Amino acid sequence: MATLGFIDYKDASPEVRAVYDDIMTTRKTDYINNFWRALAHDPATLKRTWESVKQIMAPGALDPLTKEMVYLAVSATNQCGYCIASHTAAARKAGMTDAQFAELMAVVGMASETNRMVSGYQVEIDDRFKV
Amino acid sequence: MATLGFIDYKDASPEVRAVYDDIMTTRKTDYINNFWRALAHDPATLKRTWESVKQIMAPGALDPLTKEMVYLAVSATNQCGYCIASHTAAARKAGMTDAQFAELMAVVGMASETNRMVSGYQVEIDDRFKV
Amino acid sequence: MATLGFIDYKDASPEVRAVYDDIMTTRKTDYINNFWRALAHDPATLKRTWESVKQIMAPGALDPLTKEMVYLAVSATNQCGYCIASHTAAARKAGMTDAQFAELMAVVGMASETNRMVSGYQVEIDDRFKV
Amino acid sequence: MATLGFIDYKDASPEVRAVYDDIMTTRKTDYINNFWRALAHDPATLKRTWESVKQIMAPGALDPLTKEMVYLAVSATNQCGYCIASHTAAARKAGMTDAQFAELMAVVGMASETNRMVSGYQVEIDDRFKV
Amino acid sequence: MATLGFIDYKDASPEVRAVYDDIMTTRKTDYINNFWRALAHDPATLKRTWESVKQIMAPGALDPLTKEMVYLAVSATNQCGYCIASHTAAARKAGMTDAQFAELMAVVGMASETNRMVSGYQVEIDDRFKV
Amino acid sequence: MATLGFIDYKDASPEVRAVYDDIMTTRKTDYINNFWRALAHDPATLKRTWESVKQIMAPGALDPLTKEMVYLAVSATNQCGYCIASHTAAARKAGMTDAQFAELMAVVGMASETNRMVSGYQVEIDDRFKV
Repeated sequence: MATLGFIDYKDASPEVRAVYDDIMTTRKTDYINNFWRALAHDPATLKRTWESVKQIMAPGALDPLTKEMVYLAVSATNQCGYCIASHTAAARKAGMTDAQFAELMAVVGMASETNRMVSGYQVEIDDRFKV
Repeated sequence: MATLGFIDYKDASPEVRAVYDDIMTTRKTDYINNFWRALAHDPATLKRTWESVKQIMAPGALDPLTKEMVYLAVSATNQCGYCIASHTAAARKAGMTDAQFAELMAVVGMASETNRMVSGYQVEIDDRFKV
Repeated sequence: MATLGFIDYKDASPEVRAVYDDIMTTRKTDYINNFWRALAHDPATLKRTWESVKQIMAPGALDPLTKEMVYLAVSATNQCGYCIASHTAAARKAGMTDAQFAELMAVVGMASETNRMVSGYQVEIDDRFKV
Repeated sequence: MATLGFIDYKDASPEVRAVYDDIMTTRKTDYINNFWRALAHDPATLKRTWESVKQIMAPGALDPLTKEMVYLAVSATNQCGYCIASHTAAARKAGMTDAQFAELMAVVGMASETNRMVSGYQVEIDDRFKV
Repeated sequence: MATLGFIDYKDASPEVRAVYDDIMTTRKTDYINNFWRALAHDPATLKRTWESVKQIMAPGALDPLTKEMVYLAVSATNQCGYCIASHTAAARKAGMTDAQFAELMAVVGMASETNRMVSGYQVEIDDRFKV
Repeated sequence: MATLGFIDYKDASPEVRAVYDDIMTTRKTDYINNFWRALAHDPATLKRTWESVKQIMAPGALDPLTKEMVYLAVSATNQCGYCIASHTAAARKAGMTDAQFAELMAVVGMASETNRMVSGYQVEIDDRFKV
């Protein structure tokens, strides 16, 4: 179990329940996943984090599927097992196909490869890439 | 200058020139950026890396703009200054707007935040996220 | 089991036992955790690593609780599951409350978020922050 | 200059100015550092990020100096040059001495060392460290 | 199971089987490990990745054992559990002794420690180290 | 300049000078590089870090060139610019050729690529790779 354990809806304070309700409404689900139930021990952080995620992942200049795939790409780069599992599920719910997943991972891998090579070779930034 | 220095087109072997030519043709440019000119000291790696990038970044299940933005997101996560600069340029060339850039960075930041919180709280993967 | 397995006290050489004894005395415990039992296959590294940890984590300009929380923060940032688990235990033993843990993780998450955004936006260091 | 450049107070929209004003009031300064001036191209992210930082870094179960030192520790772990420079300045403003800085870096270095060794040796979590 | 599951030899397409055959021939084994069986859902990536690995890990200016140990060192630095396990096995097959493994991990740990300290102390590159 | 500045030999305390002397003797040089001159503000950490580096990098089951190349590989993976520069110089002094450097970077890049792909695909460890 997580460091502080999980708080289920039935045991939650009104403040926490309000966040849980908003998660369920926004995501059209009746399930609160472990991350939120772990964070609920710190209601202010739970509320702030959820509201930030909600704002950031809403449709905007980027569509929700692209955002979920970027979230998954960053999570794979940071080697966060939980986040990879949960955002793979979220990206699929947003429409990610197996072929898109495979191409996404190919880009993530290639970027990580060249990131290290560039640094290792001590390549200076081209003048034309400077702002 | 980079660890092994740069190799310009005029000084390049036929093997390296063939890669440079393909880069310029594929990218519709007459400019070879520093990364490739640094890698040219190792022609086999230059050729393999360019052909991998070319294959991976070609249009497929994901469009080129999405791929460039994912590349930039991974580079920001890996803190590679050169790669951030060069792939910001590439993403803009592929059509990325300032608004898309800003949303992209918001997702990158948020993912990195929750990646660490999830790990720090030792949150187990929900059964439903397991494959 | 760890790559080289574990070495228990009863099976340890005098050199390893001396380190185990010092760990138990310093930490006021009769338990040697897995990390040290794994490192014991390389007695010189065991001794050097333990003596470094002992020196660094002793009270000084920073108190032991602050040091343990910093250790935990770095371990969460590096995504080391073992280290998060063991240093959460150590920080609690040093007095960390649930509220302190939650605030610590909020700082860790926020720092990781802005670290990536700063890099992604290619923000130059303000002159006044230069030494 | 940063990817999107900087927005100075005199050129800022009322929405951005309101954040700038709050930063200056909260931090008792008349200086807006580059990070905020870069983020100002995305007013919603500027506001959200500042309000999150303000909430997280306020005195609570951890004092402001400890929080600033943790922020610096995470930034050093993530290798973010800008963040190291700016949070070194912030930690000093909050009272960090040279001796505290030196001990902080010793802990950061040691944690990073053992994080990698633990992973490399594939050490399992001790039962007693499991929650 | 992996995100897309595994593809066994008996269920594989001719294109995938050709890669599997080459892996088994090159490595003198009749075993295809999970990574390749997971990648097989994307035959082009499977083929490209295997051919890259085959080219890079072949004897050259560095011998195969050194290459495997470097692969393991990078995997430990990136905190990839699967890669640590599989490349520990590969390095041992290439002749790595327990003593070499222990020294390798000592270097990996020390490098990670000083990497963070250097960054935290904001140490500029010595003129003589510039190319 | 580094956060706390540098301490030159002529300004150093006897304790610091003793370390500087040992560095110069061990490395057969009359140059103390910036990292040590920055750490000298914390003599205990200077001494401990130098003695650890000296012990770890001495010839053993691995030869000094292999150790320097591993140090460089880890530094490239951790994206530490100073460390890449200084350990490229050290590896060359130990005999690294341009061809060895290029192969080293190819392995570093490839490992980083597959590290991320393995994590992204959520590949379980093969039973035969478990200890």
